[in-house]
This record gives sequence, structure tokens and C-alpha cells, in this order.
Amino acid sequence: MLVLITYDVNTETESGKKRLRKVAKQCVNYGQRVQNSVFECVMDEAKCRQVKEILLKIIDEEKDSLRFYYLGNNYKGRVEHFGVKKSFDIEGDLIL
Amino acid sequence: MLVLITYDVNTETESGKKRLRKVAKQCVNYGQRVQNSVFECVMDEAKCRQVKEILLKIIDEEKDSLRFYYLGNNYKGRVEHFGVKKSFDIEGDLIL
Repeated sequence: MLVLITYDVNTETESGKKRLRKVAKQCVNYGQRVQNSVFECVMDEAKCRQVKEILLKIIDEEKDSLRFYYLGNNYKGRVEHFGVKKSFDIEGDLIL
Repeated sequence: MLVLITYDVNTETESGKKRLRKVAKQCVNYGQRVQNSVFECVMDEAKCRQVKEILLKIIDEEKDSLRFYYLGNNYKGRVEHFGVKKSFDIEGDLIL
């Protein structure tokens, strides 16, 4: 299934900037960065629980916002993109 | 249906900063801002075409990124939020 992870981390403090870097660094392991704080991750429920657990240990729920959007398995028609940073089809054919 | 609008506007120039403000200003007319550059909009297809047309006239497709995610009508189970800036249920009961 496609899971969209979006986040806003409060970077007013050094620890906030550190949290932001850590969140992005973790998300890269699970999907592709399509915008600054938006990741598209094709993963199963177990993987999703895993990344959620990791991210919840990083963010400060009093200052930061973390959102998960579940777009299901038939997600290709659910995403539309305009402009730069076009995302690649994670499950598409890899042309070497 | 719930439509998620996410965007990354290149703000290296003054015109970019202006585009960013204009995009946010327009999106507010169609839904709620849940994160800096993430809007949740409950709207029909006609309204969606309308906001898309408006936003495409604002952004610079060579520099900016605009994404639409269509979460359908049964969206309540598709969104999960942690931390600050909890979104309110647009279609929920208004308690006065």
C-alpha cells in the first residue's frame, strides 16, 4: 500500500533542527522524498508500524506534527503531480 | 472527497516567496491547513478542478512542486495524526 508521511518539525531550537534531520533520515529508508517534508512509501502494515514507532520516538509531540495518509493498494490514480521533483513509480519496471 | 494538496515552492527569490504566499492564500479557501505546506480539502471534482487551475496559474512548474492526493469519500480511516495542529473534522458536527 502507498503511505504518505508528512511532517512539520518545529526548528526554532537546535534540538528541533536535529529532530528534523533525524525524521528525514529515517523516512528515506522507507520511501521516496517527493517534497521537503513529504515522503511516499510503498510498504506493508508491519513496515508502517515500524516507521511509525521510530518516528514517534524522534518527534516532540508537543511541538511537531506527523501525519500518515493511507492511499491503499490502488494508488496510481490517486496521485497527481505538477512541476519539479516528479516521483518515480516505486513498483514500476526498473529500466537499466 | 478528501483531497490533500501538498506543495514545495522555491523561495530563493522574492517572486518565489510571493508565489508561496499566494498558493497558501488560495488553498485556505478550499480546506484546512494541517501543516506548513499541506492542506486537507473536502471538495467535489468541480471544486478540485477549480483550485488546480488557480494554483497552476500561480506556481512556476520549472521551480515548484504541487501534488494532489485523492483519498476518496471514505477518508476518515485513511488519516492518522500525531502531535500538534490536530485537524478538525470538516464534515463533523459543529458544536456552538
